[in-house]
Amino acid sequence: LTIDIAATEEWTRLLSLHARAPRIREQFARDPERARRFSVEAAGLFVDFSKNRIDDGVLRELIALAHRAGLDQARARMFAGEPVNATEDRAALHVALRDRSSRTYSARGAEISSLVRAELAKMERFCAHVHSDARGFRGDPLDTVVHIGIGGSDLGPRMAVDALKQYWLAGQRTLFVSNVDGRHLGDALASVDPARTLFIVASKTFSTLETVTNARAARDALIGRGASDRDVARQFAALTSNSRAAAEFGVAPDQVFSFWDWVGGRFSLWSVIGLPVALQIGFDVFAALQGGAAAMDRHFETAPAGANAPVLLALIGLWNRNFEGAAAHAILPYDQRLGELPAFLQQLEMESNGKRRRSDGAPVRVQTAPVVFGEPGTDCQHAFMQALHQGTDVISADFIVAALSDGELAGQHELLLANCLAQSEALMRGKTEDEARAELAAAGLSAAEVERLAPHQTFPGGRPSTTILMERLGPQTLGALIALYEHKVFCQGVLWGINPFDQWGVELGKALAKAIRPEISARGERKPAASRRDSSTNQLLDRINALRSRAE
Amino acid sequence: LTIDIAATEEWTRLLSLHARAPRIREQFARDPERARRFSVEAAGLFVDFSKNRIDDGVLRELIALAHRAGLDQARARMFAGEPVNATEDRAALHVALRDRSSRTYSARGAEISSLVRAELAKMERFCAHVHSDARGFRGDPLDTVVHIGIGGSDLGPRMAVDALKQYWLAGQRTLFVSNVDGRHLGDALASVDPARTLFIVASKTFSTLETVTNARAARDALIGRGASDRDVARQFAALTSNSRAAAEFGVAPDQVFSFWDWVGGRFSLWSVIGLPVALQIGFDVFAALQGGAAAMDRHFETAPAGANAPVLLALIGLWNRNFEGAAAHAILPYDQRLGELPAFLQQLEMESNGKRRRSDGAPVRVQTAPVVFGEPGTDCQHAFMQALHQGTDVISADFIVAALSDGELAGQHELLLANCLAQSEALMRGKTEDEARAELAAAGLSAAEVERLAPHQTFPGGRPSTTILMERLGPQTLGALIALYEHKVFCQGVLWGINPFDQWGVELGKALAKAIRPEISARGERKPAASRRDSSTNQLLDRINALRSRAE
Repeated sequence: LTIDIAATEEWTRLLSLHARAPRIREQFARDPERARRFSVEAAGLFVDFSKNRIDDGVLRELIALAHRAGLDQARARMFAGEPVNATEDRAALHVALRDRSSRTYSARGAEISSLVRAELAKMERFCAHVHSDARGFRGDPLDTVVHIGIGGSDLGPRMAVDALKQYWLAGQRTLFVSNVDGRHLGDALASVDPARTLFIVASKTFSTLETVTNARAARDALIGRGASDRDVARQFAALTSNSRAAAEFGVAPDQVFSFWDWVGGRFSLWSVIGLPVALQIGFDVFAALQGGAAAMDRHFETAPAGANAPVLLALIGLWNRNFEGAAAHAILPYDQRLGELPAFLQQLEMESNGKRRRSDGAPVRVQTAPVVFGEPGTDCQHAFMQALHQGTDVISADFIVAALSDGELAGQHELLLANCLAQSEALMRGKTEDEARAELAAAGLSAAEVERLAPHQTFPGGRPSTTILMERLGPQTLGALIALYEHKVFCQGVLWGINPFDQWGVELGKALAKAIRPEISARGERKPAASRRDSSTNQLLDRINALRSRAE
Repeated sequence: LTIDIAATEEWTRLLSLHARAPRIREQFARDPERARRFSVEAAGLFVDFSKNRIDDGVLRELIALAHRAGLDQARARMFAGEPVNATEDRAALHVALRDRSSRTYSARGAEISSLVRAELAKMERFCAHVHSDARGFRGDPLDTVVHIGIGGSDLGPRMAVDALKQYWLAGQRTLFVSNVDGRHLGDALASVDPARTLFIVASKTFSTLETVTNARAARDALIGRGASDRDVARQFAALTSNSRAAAEFGVAPDQVFSFWDWVGGRFSLWSVIGLPVALQIGFDVFAALQGGAAAMDRHFETAPAGANAPVLLALIGLWNRNFEGAAAHAILPYDQRLGELPAFLQQLEMESNGKRRRSDGAPVRVQTAPVVFGEPGTDCQHAFMQALHQGTDVISADFIVAALSDGELAGQHELLLANCLAQSEALMRGKTEDEARAELAAAGLSAAEVERLAPHQTFPGGRPSTTILMERLGPQTLGALIALYEHKVFCQGVLWGINPFDQWGVELGKALAKAIRPEISARGERKPAASRRDSSTNQLLDRINALRSRAE
């Protein structure tokens, strides 16, 4: 039951509100209560939306639009395990994975909570085993994990392991291998002792090209170092819905961990896909990560739209995208440990909502997911922030920062905080040409110099941003933060009428790669030229094969 | 002498050509010679532009536009050391840094080539010293480098060290610290033996907040482990234009390496900023990297526009940005070792051309630098490629790949190549709804299922991309690749009338951070509420200070 939101009265009213919306700077000047009124608190996160070009009227219409699009019902359907992943006829129940209360969830009518509990309990036992009595083929403890997975089986765990470095178990380390480029696995193997390494193979279908290729190469390497098939069974674990394939690969059945068709890859961190995280930080801390997400789930499920952080984040995102015209959205964590968060959210938003068809097959008439990108602050200030401040396009941004840090050099945190606040202030405020002129004149420059430089020291301002503040980065706040964005993406899917849980757009390239693969020459071999494709692909193929044929 | 390109006849003609330009797929169907005609070879790189929506007429007008904008003269002025960085009245002579021929360069009339040679010779001797007889404060060899720098002093060396892993000297390693977040340096210090570590401090002014803060903390850590001031002098090197400040900091004068005001931060890899690269791969390999860039410089300086790779890359970029409407540009290296290239190019393009004023102060009337982002393939296919294939916006892309790889698992390279070719083929070709229907029907789906799924398996196609192919990733090809993009950015600056060598947009945030910094409470301290700012910044400051005051 998706609708064309652009055809609603709410949309028309939003267009007219947008046409006469004052600049953010003016709205702050008019209303001293603005910040308080446009902020919410949820699950340990304080979210300040006030540096976006919204006011009460805009927010009211945005919320009305959400109601019109059926957000309340859609949310209820998701929690109820109805097939909100309509094109694939599946539920989407990542919320069930992290709910450790007594609540029972069902996926399309079938109870799943006991499955979830059993699988997480199995995972917890396995963590205890690896941390105590598991041994590699030479009798060493397994203190190293090489996690082999790609996309949703990689970005979430990688991001969480990085983010929670503070909680790493002493002596334990984790390497992530995703790319089919042989140097990714090769470099990892060169830096670990295979005799102390647990290899985790994460693939829902156990058929993902990259993952299976790397898993086979890792198994060969282990055998090459003297491990037997029985050793392989013990030094490999699998995270998959296809336990048969994992067993055929050679993983011991009690080291195969399951998840289900109602867990989407990019929403799977909370399932057994979290195993490398639990091994690196301990199962208890992993459970706290789930707990943070569950707290956000409760908030999302119960808070009224006007005080609901994920709903508001979604609505502001839509406003910035469809009315302010922001084609890109920057994720700016002022936290070095959140360095992988932008890549994680890039997948979450762009793979979920980077679509042009509604669930019902009709074209979406407005623009959908923006390009999501980002780097940690303060590094971003020395890289691309120039374009956010003075570029020709409006690029929206989320600033993410913790009030407190830990570690020896925590004193430097004050500089980090000051910079984070200053950037959103500068983006919003800007600097007029008159202000620039006055400053330059006050600095003693000649009138000619003032005229020459003032245009370059002028900032348009009015660049929208949201700031997410937490006390500290820890498992609870990280869990809440991820769930906040997961639900934001879900809400935007509902608003645009998109199914955020499928990804048909990845299929065409896969099919074409399969066709091209046999035409690539092995090193030193020369295959005849292909001719069935466009002349560009043919020409590249010919050149590649010519270069490869010359190689020894 | 910048012009408003949007007011030229060429621009008007391009608009009308764009309005009737056939889809790329049709252009391939019409012209079997298309790929050959829209490809160039330069300095070991094969660049195929044919999967962009251009034809001879468009290219002719784009080249005419470049001439109209004075590209030939601007390029000549850059090589001649004239102040092409007009707002700062400086030359931009990164080409002089890597030219190891007998040619003599001058910056604003003053000969500089002998300075460059002397400084590089000093750097080469220092590399030999570190690799042989340099010792830390306990008598150990200095086999570890911690490089402290940010932005242009970080992204280039970090990317090059990663990319050239194949060439790493045995036993040598390099860590990069950029963020003022204390955990960046803290984590690095925790993973090195300070007694074997050379700390390199890279800051043009030796006053960059992050770099100086981290450098001081590193010095304190070294002294804390028992090093004397004399040891500090020997275990620190500085890369700076401000040798006095480096000496005051405590670096031995013969370990201070200079660069000059005609070297822009994001163009500085070729200067002494390349020291960590030279230490990690050896000075000879670093010289080969310079050589690759110099080969591209010769090509750029001499090739006619229609066969000039950087000029064409710039023109196609402008076409995609200003006519095709691509607000974002993806950098997709199908090479795990080029994982840092997107971040490097993000800075290069967005900080150089993310501007709205021409050099002469007039507003630019068209859109300038797009958002540049990317991740290595094949990972990108499992993350954000969904949006490139089926999103609502046109996002242009550069695919970068080597025909051959090295290492134990080089066999997997065939999969990487097949995927790289398949993605650009899929983006260009797309799949019509009729094609999708036919495939689904052929797969045996019911008519209802075919109707339901076909819209989701439809791809618009026509998504523009360029493929850059090299034989292998090595110092020469990497050098050529970086120089290709440097010159692309320069050309686009000329076309848009922008000075790509300044970055005024970073100043406002810096000034505001300086003002906020004293108002952030130290841990356990409570500062009075600020009141002079907008209520959002005030509120965030209050919350942060409240949280910090409660902490022990």
